[in-house]
Amino acid sequence: MTAADIIRCTYRIESPFEPEKAAALMAANMSAGTFTKVPGETAALKQRFSVRVENVRPLETVTGAPALPFGSRSPTDGTFYRADVTLAVPLDITGTELATVLAVIAGGVTELKELSGVRLLDFELPPAFADAHPGPGFGIEGTRRLIGVYDRPIIASIIKPNVGLTPEQTADIVRALVDAGVDFVKDDEKMTNPPYSTIEKRAAAVMAVINEAAQRAGKKTMYAFNISSDDPDEMVRRHDTVLKAGATCVMVNINHIGYAGVRYLRQRAQLPIHAHRNGWGILTRCPLLGMEFNAYNKIWRLVGVDQLHVNGLRNKYWEADESVVNAIRQCLTPLFRPADRLLPVVGSGMWAGQVPDTYRLTQTTDFMYIAGGGIQGHPGGPAAGVRSLMQAWEAAVMGVPLNDYAADHPELRQALDRFGTQSPGG
Amino acid sequence: MTAADIIRCTYRIESPFEPEKAAALMAANMSAGTFTKVPGETAALKQRFSVRVENVRPLETVTGAPALPFGSRSPTDGTFYRADVTLAVPLDITGTELATVLAVIAGGVTELKELSGVRLLDFELPPAFADAHPGPGFGIEGTRRLIGVYDRPIIASIIKPNVGLTPEQTADIVRALVDAGVDFVKDDEKMTNPPYSTIEKRAAAVMAVINEAAQRAGKKTMYAFNISSDDPDEMVRRHDTVLKAGATCVMVNINHIGYAGVRYLRQRAQLPIHAHRNGWGILTRCPLLGMEFNAYNKIWRLVGVDQLHVNGLRNKYWEADESVVNAIRQCLTPLFRPADRLLPVVGSGMWAGQVPDTYRLTQTTDFMYIAGGGIQGHPGGPAAGVRSLMQAWEAAVMGVPLNDYAADHPELRQALDRFGTQSPGG
Repeated sequence: MTAADIIRCTYRIESPFEPEKAAALMAANMSAGTFTKVPGETAALKQRFSVRVENVRPLETVTGAPALPFGSRSPTDGTFYRADVTLAVPLDITGTELATVLAVIAGGVTELKELSGVRLLDFELPPAFADAHPGPGFGIEGTRRLIGVYDRPIIASIIKPNVGLTPEQTADIVRALVDAGVDFVKDDEKMTNPPYSTIEKRAAAVMAVINEAAQRAGKKTMYAFNISSDDPDEMVRRHDTVLKAGATCVMVNINHIGYAGVRYLRQRAQLPIHAHRNGWGILTRCPLLGMEFNAYNKIWRLVGVDQLHVNGLRNKYWEADESVVNAIRQCLTPLFRPADRLLPVVGSGMWAGQVPDTYRLTQTTDFMYIAGGGIQGHPGGPAAGVRSLMQAWEAAVMGVPLNDYAADHPELRQALDRFGTQSPGG
Repeated sequence: MTAADIIRCTYRIESPFEPEKAAALMAANMSAGTFTKVPGETAALKQRFSVRVENVRPLETVTGAPALPFGSRSPTDGTFYRADVTLAVPLDITGTELATVLAVIAGGVTELKELSGVRLLDFELPPAFADAHPGPGFGIEGTRRLIGVYDRPIIASIIKPNVGLTPEQTADIVRALVDAGVDFVKDDEKMTNPPYSTIEKRAAAVMAVINEAAQRAGKKTMYAFNISSDDPDEMVRRHDTVLKAGATCVMVNINHIGYAGVRYLRQRAQLPIHAHRNGWGILTRCPLLGMEFNAYNKIWRLVGVDQLHVNGLRNKYWEADESVVNAIRQCLTPLFRPADRLLPVVGSGMWAGQVPDTYRLTQTTDFMYIAGGGIQGHPGGPAAGVRSLMQAWEAAVMGVPLNDYAADHPELRQALDRFGTQSPGG
C-alpha cells in the first residue's frame, strides 16, 4: 500500500491489554474480519483488505478506574495502558464515501470491549477524497468577497433574545446592527422556522432592512438565516427563499442535520454555509472518547461548509483556550488546497478584551468575530461596540496594548471599563 | 403550560454548583436567553419561551476529579454534585423539527462550563410529534409480514468476511444461508457500493438466489442491502435498485448518514429500514455525557427506521447486559401507538447459548436474532446452525433448560458442545 491508497488514522486509546495487542484488536475489527472459514476468503483477499498497525506510542499507565466502562468479562489486574496508535486503513475497504469511511474508522471500533478509552485524534486522507467531495463552495475568500471586507476580521453579531421575536422585532435589531456597521448577523441556532417568525416573513423583514442599507451605503451586511430542517428538500426551499430575498448566507445546525443532509444542501446551495456545531460537546468532551476537532473539521470540510464555529478565548463554555487555538489553526490549514480552508467563527462571550490574545496566539485576522453583548451591550450603543472591536484589532495587529490604544479611542475605553469587570455574554 | 405543550427532558448532571443552581443555569441556556435588554424583550415573551426546572433529584456528591473537563475558571472546592434534573421545554421554543429540538435539548447545554457532566437520559414528547414525523413504515408487524414469520424470532445472519467478496462469492454464501433456512441476511456495515461489488451487481447476484428459492420454496429470505451513501438521492437510487431486484429490506449506517438524510430516504422508501447504529459508542459510552438509548431510539423512531440494533447478551462489545435488556424494552414500548414499536436487532457473538437469558429477561420473541458464526460456524453446517437456534428458542419459551432439550435435539447439542467453550464471534 502507498500513501495514496490509505487513510491514516490516529487514536488515543486506553485498555487493560498492552497497547500493541489493543491496536491489533482494533485493526482486526476494522478489517475484513471473519468468524469462520468461508469459501471466498483467501490470503490475497485478507492482505488487500486488512488494516495495518503503523505505529504505537505508549503513554502513561494508570491504575484504578478505567476511563470508560468496558467489557465486564475482560481480564484486568486494575492496570490500564494508554497509547496513541496509528492505523493504516486501505481505501479498498472504505472507498471515499463518509457513510462507509466513518463506519470503519468511527464505527464498531468505538465499542470494543477490550478498550476502556478510544478517541479519534486525527486522520489523513489520500487525494482521492479531494475529487469525491464538494468541499467549501465559498470558504474564507468567498465569504470576504460577498461582504467586501478583506484586511481585518469580519465583525459579527447575533439576534438575541433568540426566540419569541416577531420578524418586525428582529428587523429592528438588524437595523440597529446594520447602522452600527457590523459585517455579519446571524440567527440563533434555536430559531429556525417557528409560526411567529417563518423564514419567509423573517427573510422579507430582515432583508428589507439590509437591502435598503446596501443600496444607500454600498455595503451589504451578510445575514445567516438558520434554514436547518429535518427535510433536506425543505432546507433547500428555505435556502431558495432567503436567496430570493437577497440574503448572502445560510446557517445550519450541522450535528442535528447530519452529513448527508448538509451535503444535499451543499450541492444545491448558491450561498455560503455557516456551520453551527451545537451538540459538539457530546462528540468531544470526554477525553478518551469521541473525536478531536482535528478529525471533525475535516469531515465537515469534505461535506462542504464554509464557516465553522470554534468558540473563542475565555468563552462561556467548557472548552479550554488551547483547544480553541488549535481549532482555529485547523480551520486555517489547507486540506487539499488553500481554497478549502474554513473561516473560523469565534464567539461566545467575545468583546474587545480577547482580541490581543486571539491575535497573538494565531497571527491572523482571518476570523468571523461574533460579539453579542460585546456590541449590543456596549455602553455607547452598538455602533460604539463595533468601533471598540475594530479598534481592538487595530491595536492587536500593531502590537499596542489595549489600554494604551484606548487613550485616544473612547469606544475601546468604554468597552474596557464596562466589560473588563463583567463579561458581556453571548 | 400543559403536558401537550412541553417536551419533558431528564438529564443526569454533575457540577461544582449545587444541583438547583446547575439546573437553573441549564434552563436559562435553553431558554430565550439574552445578554442585554433589547426592545422586543417583554415579561410575557420571557414567560412563554422559558424552560422551567420541574424536578431536581440529588444523587451522590463526589470529590476529586470531575467526570468531564469543565470551565477552568469555574469556582470549585473539589466537590461535585450529581443529580437527575427534569426540565420542561415549551414547544413554543422548539417546534417539532428535530433540527431545532436537538439544538435546544442537546446543543449548547452539553457544553456549559458550569457542568462537569451532562447526559440526556430520556425525554417525553407531546402528541404533536406523532403527526409531524413519519415514524416506522413497517416496524415489527411489517417486517414479520414480509418474511412470513410470526411466532418466533426472525433468525438472521450476516455476510462475512465483510469486504473483498465479489457479488458471486456473496451470492454463494447467501445460497448456503437460504438453503439453511435463515429468515434474514444482511450486508456488513462496512460494505456499501465498492467497485468490486456494486449495489447493482450484488443485488442482481444475491436476489437471483433469493428469488429462485422463494419461487421454489414459497418463503422469501429478507436481505438488507447496505445502501448507505453521503448523497440522499444516491441512497434512494440504491433503494430503487434493490427494490427492483426483488429485495425486501434496506440497511443504513444511521449515525453516519444523519437524521435528515435518513428521513429523506424514509419518505421515499418502499422497504423496511434496517438501522445499523455503529458509532453509537461515541454518543453513549461516557456515563456522564451524551445520551441514553431511551432518548436515542425515540429520535430514530420519529425519523422512521423499522429495525434497530441493540447488541445482545454477553456481546463482543463493551455494553453490559442490563443496558441491552433496557434497549430491547425501549424498542418494544410504543411511543405514540403500537405500530411505532421497533424490531430489536440482537447481535454480536450470538448463538443458542444466550437465548434462555434473552427470553427470561424480556419475555418476548419479537426479535431479529443475528448469528454470524453461530450459524456459519456450526459444526453441522449452517442448516444445523439455524436449527440449533430455533431449538434454543423453543426450549426457552417452554422453560426447558438447553441441556435437557439438547438430549433429543442434536443440532442444539452440537452448538452447546462447540460454542459453550468458545464464543462463535460476530
